[in-house]
Amino acid sequence: MIQKLIRKIQKTNAPIVVGLDPTLKFVPEYIKQAAFEEYGETLEGAAEAVWQYNKGIVDAVCDLVPAVKPQIAMYEQFGIPGLAAFKKTVDYCKGKDLVVIADVKRGDIGSTSEAYAVGHLGGVQVGSKFCRGFDEDFVTVNPYLGSDGIKPFLKVCAEEKKGIFVLVKTSNPSSGELQDRLVKGAGENGERPLYEIVGEQVAAWGAEYMPEEGNYSYVGAVVGATYPEQGRILRELMPRAFILVPGYGAQGGKGADLVHFFREDGLGAIINSSRGIIAAYQQEKYARFGERGYADAARAAVLDMREDIASALESR
Amino acid sequence: MIQKLIRKIQKTNAPIVVGLDPTLKFVPEYIKQAAFEEYGETLEGAAEAVWQYNKGIVDAVCDLVPAVKPQIAMYEQFGIPGLAAFKKTVDYCKGKDLVVIADVKRGDIGSTSEAYAVGHLGGVQVGSKFCRGFDEDFVTVNPYLGSDGIKPFLKVCAEEKKGIFVLVKTSNPSSGELQDRLVKGAGENGERPLYEIVGEQVAAWGAEYMPEEGNYSYVGAVVGATYPEQGRILRELMPRAFILVPGYGAQGGKGADLVHFFREDGLGAIINSSRGIIAAYQQEKYARFGERGYADAARAAVLDMREDIASALESR
Repeated sequence: MIQKLIRKIQKTNAPIVVGLDPTLKFVPEYIKQAAFEEYGETLEGAAEAVWQYNKGIVDAVCDLVPAVKPQIAMYEQFGIPGLAAFKKTVDYCKGKDLVVIADVKRGDIGSTSEAYAVGHLGGVQVGSKFCRGFDEDFVTVNPYLGSDGIKPFLKVCAEEKKGIFVLVKTSNPSSGELQDRLVKGAGENGERPLYEIVGEQVAAWGAEYMPEEGNYSYVGAVVGATYPEQGRILRELMPRAFILVPGYGAQGGKGADLVHFFREDGLGAIINSSRGIIAAYQQEKYARFGERGYADAARAAVLDMREDIASALESR
Repeated sequence: MIQKLIRKIQKTNAPIVVGLDPTLKFVPEYIKQAAFEEYGETLEGAAEAVWQYNKGIVDAVCDLVPAVKPQIAMYEQFGIPGLAAFKKTVDYCKGKDLVVIADVKRGDIGSTSEAYAVGHLGGVQVGSKFCRGFDEDFVTVNPYLGSDGIKPFLKVCAEEKKGIFVLVKTSNPSSGELQDRLVKGAGENGERPLYEIVGEQVAAWGAEYMPEEGNYSYVGAVVGATYPEQGRILRELMPRAFILVPGYGAQGGKGADLVHFFREDGLGAIINSSRGIIAAYQQEKYARFGERGYADAARAAVLDMREDIASALESR
């Protein structure tokens, strides 16, 4: 699947993943009204609105980008109907040949972590049948519980030729509270921030889990666009890890900040934008599209983002 | 809700939470067969088997314990039907007046963390209606992303008078890979393990989020029974935090290890057992109950666990 991601990035010339993180505030009124008329002002109604909204965006951008990243929390907030809309979105995107990175940030231990791994990337044996739950292509994983929590994912990744992105340095303002702590007895100077230690683990896990061909591992990392300097260090520390980079656009990351996340081959990173694309029509810059043109506004925002990244990479 | 938990612990004299972490390996054959006959060897069939199995256990133990802790991963592995069985289990347990601690270990940032918080503890506005997704009483939360990830939960906890348990020191063998790292420039000796820093944050968050009455905060902590010495230190560091203690039984924690997690008032901790109770009939000790007596075996295991904890607390 990492190979497919790379091929699609090369074909689209867009190392971009569209974050499908819908909230009802983003969904145009006419879509909400239609959904509420059919299903009432219920969780089912909200889920239907989100699904129709997603479908419009996916149809408008699927030829431009290699991948989408639905954020499961945004669906989980609507309970079971919301999660059914998540699953419908995943399936629809796979039908459009998009790589699906499910932003689930799961993390647990042993058999529990295994349950998440088989639920999202693999399948379970039910009597004589093998059944798949969510069946995404990649998931994000939280490393706080240590390698007991990661290894069950690695096993499933190897079997399914799928991948994970481990949270290393997240894009949010308070990510440093734990991740930047200086750890004693590590590194050349006898101290090292925690995120570098996680980065080293990612590199070690990744070296064990390589596909048969290519330079990139099944094990990637999440590093926020808002921390370009840390991105540079981590890029060197994890040479075989694809880096999933959130925080571009709405969170403050710019094209010029991104160059450090890429390797010399122009690969090695994929930049996420969520609100900046899916709710582009709510920005002044794309207001001309209006509410009914929300999908076209998303397409325009993708084209602008592609240009921004390309020019940043050219001028490095 | 923390008050309700305390009242129920006092009433049952059992600081015990039953981990409803079903896998198909635990579910008796006759339950699986009935479910597969009705729904086929499908995710729906697996979910039905798990639900029937849970129901038997809950009926057998609900008068003995204050709380249950369904582990959502074990349901998520069966996709949407599995999560529907999770929701059914949550509702059924609430109907039996049990406190429901959902072991979801979610953790994200900003609006995403808020989505998890409202999805699991609160509700969302859908048009003119307020709708609740999962509506559990407590959830477990991962702190790796810092306070941006925790604060949205705290806000919802205060509104709903519900609570969270923050992962501080987990019970698994590799929990130390990150959690035990010695952090520079913290604590009296200029260094301190990471879990203590998280424990301090829990204490600080907890001091802000106290219910109107009582000594315990809406903000609790997870500390594994397998690390009793760390439990003692963390107990002092977080005086107002209830500690959720996994790792008893199957993972190796014993009654005598648990005393450090309790405060002088005999409160302040609730001990989880999952496999040790729900799959008791598969142990030699309870084999006499047989497969069809799995629920009675669970009840016997709860009684033994209650005794083990009480005698450990008495002899301290």
